[in-house]
Amino acid sequence: MKLTTTIVAALAMGNIASAESGDIIRDGEYHYLEAQMGEQWAVQDADIDARLANIHEANGGKPPNILYILIDDVSFGQMGKRDMNYVTGIDTSNINQLASESLSLMRMYTEPSCTPTRTAFLTGRHPIRAGVEEVKVALVGEGLAAEEVTLPEVLKEVGYNTGHVGKWHQGDIEQSFPHNQGFDWAAFPVHQQVQLALMTRDTMESNNMLGFHTSGQSNEFAIDQRFRPFGLVTGLEAQAGGMAREVDLEPGEEWTQAHYERMNERYQAQIVEQLEQLAAKDEPFFLQYWPLYPLNFVYPDQSISRNGGFMAEKLEVLDGWIGELMAKLEATGEADNTLVVLMADNGLMYHYEGTSGLSQLIYRGGKTNHLEGGVRVDAYVRWPGVIEPGSSAGDIIHVSDLYTTFARIAGATDHIPRDRVIDGVDQTALFLEGEGNSRRDYVYVYEGPVLRSIVKQEFKMHMPAPGVPGAAAPVFNILRDPREENAQIGYSLWSGASFQDMLKRHMLTIAKHPHLPLGKGKPYEGIENLRPESIETREVFDSWH
Amino acid sequence: MKLTTTIVAALAMGNIASAESGDIIRDGEYHYLEAQMGEQWAVQDADIDARLANIHEANGGKPPNILYILIDDVSFGQMGKRDMNYVTGIDTSNINQLASESLSLMRMYTEPSCTPTRTAFLTGRHPIRAGVEEVKVALVGEGLAAEEVTLPEVLKEVGYNTGHVGKWHQGDIEQSFPHNQGFDWAAFPVHQQVQLALMTRDTMESNNMLGFHTSGQSNEFAIDQRFRPFGLVTGLEAQAGGMAREVDLEPGEEWTQAHYERMNERYQAQIVEQLEQLAAKDEPFFLQYWPLYPLNFVYPDQSISRNGGFMAEKLEVLDGWIGELMAKLEATGEADNTLVVLMADNGLMYHYEGTSGLSQLIYRGGKTNHLEGGVRVDAYVRWPGVIEPGSSAGDIIHVSDLYTTFARIAGATDHIPRDRVIDGVDQTALFLEGEGNSRRDYVYVYEGPVLRSIVKQEFKMHMPAPGVPGAAAPVFNILRDPREENAQIGYSLWSGASFQDMLKRHMLTIAKHPHLPLGKGKPYEGIENLRPESIETREVFDSWH
Repeated sequence: MKLTTTIVAALAMGNIASAESGDIIRDGEYHYLEAQMGEQWAVQDADIDARLANIHEANGGKPPNILYILIDDVSFGQMGKRDMNYVTGIDTSNINQLASESLSLMRMYTEPSCTPTRTAFLTGRHPIRAGVEEVKVALVGEGLAAEEVTLPEVLKEVGYNTGHVGKWHQGDIEQSFPHNQGFDWAAFPVHQQVQLALMTRDTMESNNMLGFHTSGQSNEFAIDQRFRPFGLVTGLEAQAGGMAREVDLEPGEEWTQAHYERMNERYQAQIVEQLEQLAAKDEPFFLQYWPLYPLNFVYPDQSISRNGGFMAEKLEVLDGWIGELMAKLEATGEADNTLVVLMADNGLMYHYEGTSGLSQLIYRGGKTNHLEGGVRVDAYVRWPGVIEPGSSAGDIIHVSDLYTTFARIAGATDHIPRDRVIDGVDQTALFLEGEGNSRRDYVYVYEGPVLRSIVKQEFKMHMPAPGVPGAAAPVFNILRDPREENAQIGYSLWSGASFQDMLKRHMLTIAKHPHLPLGKGKPYEGIENLRPESIETREVFDSWH
Repeated sequence: MKLTTTIVAALAMGNIASAESGDIIRDGEYHYLEAQMGEQWAVQDADIDARLANIHEANGGKPPNILYILIDDVSFGQMGKRDMNYVTGIDTSNINQLASESLSLMRMYTEPSCTPTRTAFLTGRHPIRAGVEEVKVALVGEGLAAEEVTLPEVLKEVGYNTGHVGKWHQGDIEQSFPHNQGFDWAAFPVHQQVQLALMTRDTMESNNMLGFHTSGQSNEFAIDQRFRPFGLVTGLEAQAGGMAREVDLEPGEEWTQAHYERMNERYQAQIVEQLEQLAAKDEPFFLQYWPLYPLNFVYPDQSISRNGGFMAEKLEVLDGWIGELMAKLEATGEADNTLVVLMADNGLMYHYEGTSGLSQLIYRGGKTNHLEGGVRVDAYVRWPGVIEPGSSAGDIIHVSDLYTTFARIAGATDHIPRDRVIDGVDQTALFLEGEGNSRRDYVYVYEGPVLRSIVKQEFKMHMPAPGVPGAAAPVFNILRDPREENAQIGYSLWSGASFQDMLKRHMLTIAKHPHLPLGKGKPYEGIENLRPESIETREVFDSWH
């Protein structure tokens, strides 16, 4: 489509599409697309609105339930694809079954690590815009700011009940906890699997964390007893408006692999229970299950998979649990009115390749990397009668898009905030109309606070080192070279300018709408039964901060 | 099963199973398995014989037709798997369709290069046993020996008509040509795509073969005008017992990319025509189609795939051709009585990764490598009413097994020679009974004449350098580490001895049954219309040999 002078002038102002997208503030690149596609999208949106209205009407006027399952740290190809089960020796037949009933999103991008991907989903924003940079392991006094408007908060505005079970990893301060971020009820560990699965005596004995445990080595030169995390809070449960309660550990008790396994089993029991309870209510629900498995660092006594690796085993366990959860959904009678999304949060924790049983498969890289192996994940969307089962889409989509898309499907778009940049693009057309209907053909890929690459269509530019001109940036065609190993200087000579334009649009957006600050506070407030060792640990922390 | 003293004693003699396997001479490793499994296999074989008899009876007393399609140089995952089409941007929907109607052999091993894989299929032997070591590009005066007993020769003994269309690559001497190796009729190039697609002016102009063409650079210091192949014979056609005739080039004419494309189109037309003719006859047929595509080194004028790479394009073209061939099979009315096997001959020609559009996908390595990426291929077996459509098997199978298996299915096992080692294992049980019924759990992987690795179950030992003890050999678990990047010293400490035992059994077999010599002779004999430039080239060759 040819751009009119007015549109071009408006583009230069960076705010053309405010009206068409209901005043949501977007990144410049989205406006650039909207300037080309806006009229076509408006026509399609009218159809989609009618279709959504019909769907809601057929369901007694209610929008659908949403069940969001986010699997931790597995490679693209690791789950949902039967052929790949033969490569890995891990049977994921329950997830394969779900995939066969779903739209497979073959080009879903996430952030490269747990915390930022989850922030992007919850806020619909690149995590850096919320001040969220990195994964935090131990005590930090930081977390998702109360000022962020999360997806469950948006959905509650239109009457959804909300629940969260499992990994959270959005901070150790009260405001960041899920029951203070839009969830009616939540069961979650404050920290994550590094503390819960890696830093245990069992893992030390399995040779995966030598020297961690205080009694494991003499540590005769150790002055700082808090370099090795100690006394951290484990699993909490809480209701919105209430205090949290630690449920997994007694004062003085030592955390072990057995605790970790029991915690996982408890979350599985709780997600099934929550599903049953929420499905029985009149209101629609938004329920998320973020398992801690497959992360695990201890070999099982007895192997159930062909692979046998210590994470592979837990992935196969988890697959069975997903089967149980889907069977429960069926049993509630709500399956046909429930949108289920299952995906991974980022690539594998490749530091344990070979022994964990999880591997880089098709794409290179893993957790923490901007390479496709870090940010391309398996993703399946199931909605019986609405989304074509067994279909696939090669379109680009980013995890933040789920925020905007779920809001649209729930009829809650009006509650998306208008005072900050929202990166999430409405992908309802892609869900309902299938392949070829994505509204993005680009992704900005960050590692923590650093922009490391830009994806556009089938091209990907790795950001050149400071001072290096764009024409010398490595550019890859990821269809021809999925492992990003053969940079094509010819591409960057022509695309360098185009990629630089994209970079400028992105940076201009940031300049106009600066990042918001990360939430800060005293760690562990709002926990009613803090153990003495946690209080002591916090005191050491507070003494300096 | 516990080994009896007699079996153990017989094993030590290396010849226990001669009676049970009908006197076929096997590698020691197979005898080792047979000593453990022989009784169970004998029971299963009785069932299979009955089942095959029923199948033949239902088909008027005839065994099935066999259509064998061998694709050149593509990675595991490149064809037949819809999900992977999204990764590569290459649509292989016709082959995907065939795969969905087939048993997918998820662990098919080949040799790592064209010539040896094809020899292994044709002879049922590791190519080195027939003196076949390497890929030959230009004039050598060598080829598959007349003394080898090929699969079409075996099948002709029980009344099959036989045909070959496409790549042959078994030598430039008369005895090695397909019409002298069991095929009633054949259309084939003497050499291969290096000559036919890579060494052309067009490829030079596309920057893929700089300096080849004599007029392309001054070559002022070139004395040897035959270092760059010149005047080689191109495509031949021949009937058994007759002379071959060159059909693709006139005297004095220069070979071009257009000739190459026309040759490919001609082979496609001829395979369709052959299929029609053979299907109309009373006798069963064995027909093989070994396309030259996707090998190609020139960008197309117009791209048809999302990928657009110069080989990717031809793979998508070829996929359409496979669809046409399968439709023709359906049209003949013989589809239900035709066993179709489609597979690749080895990993991709990775030297052109990035621009060809074909890539290493899941496994590391490609053509010429003993790594899984060199020798693991997509392989599909379709036999309506007999083989379970849409099934998969994770069992190990080797391309040489097809020799023995096709012979069994055709009722021609008695015609397999008894005077030389046959490596091909009868995999009829795997075909008919499905996963878990393979009769091999090992592969010896050669690169040319050199044994480079040994595969056993999920383990793979890379042969240590000379003098390095077995306990220091890199050993991989290819389920946990499909890219063979994280050798586990712990594995080799226990498996070193077991792998060395396997090596000894293999070497003892060779000592007892030495390799046969490669066929030798004067190149280009038996061609009735040799062009003057080919005669001249041969004279230069002959002057020294």
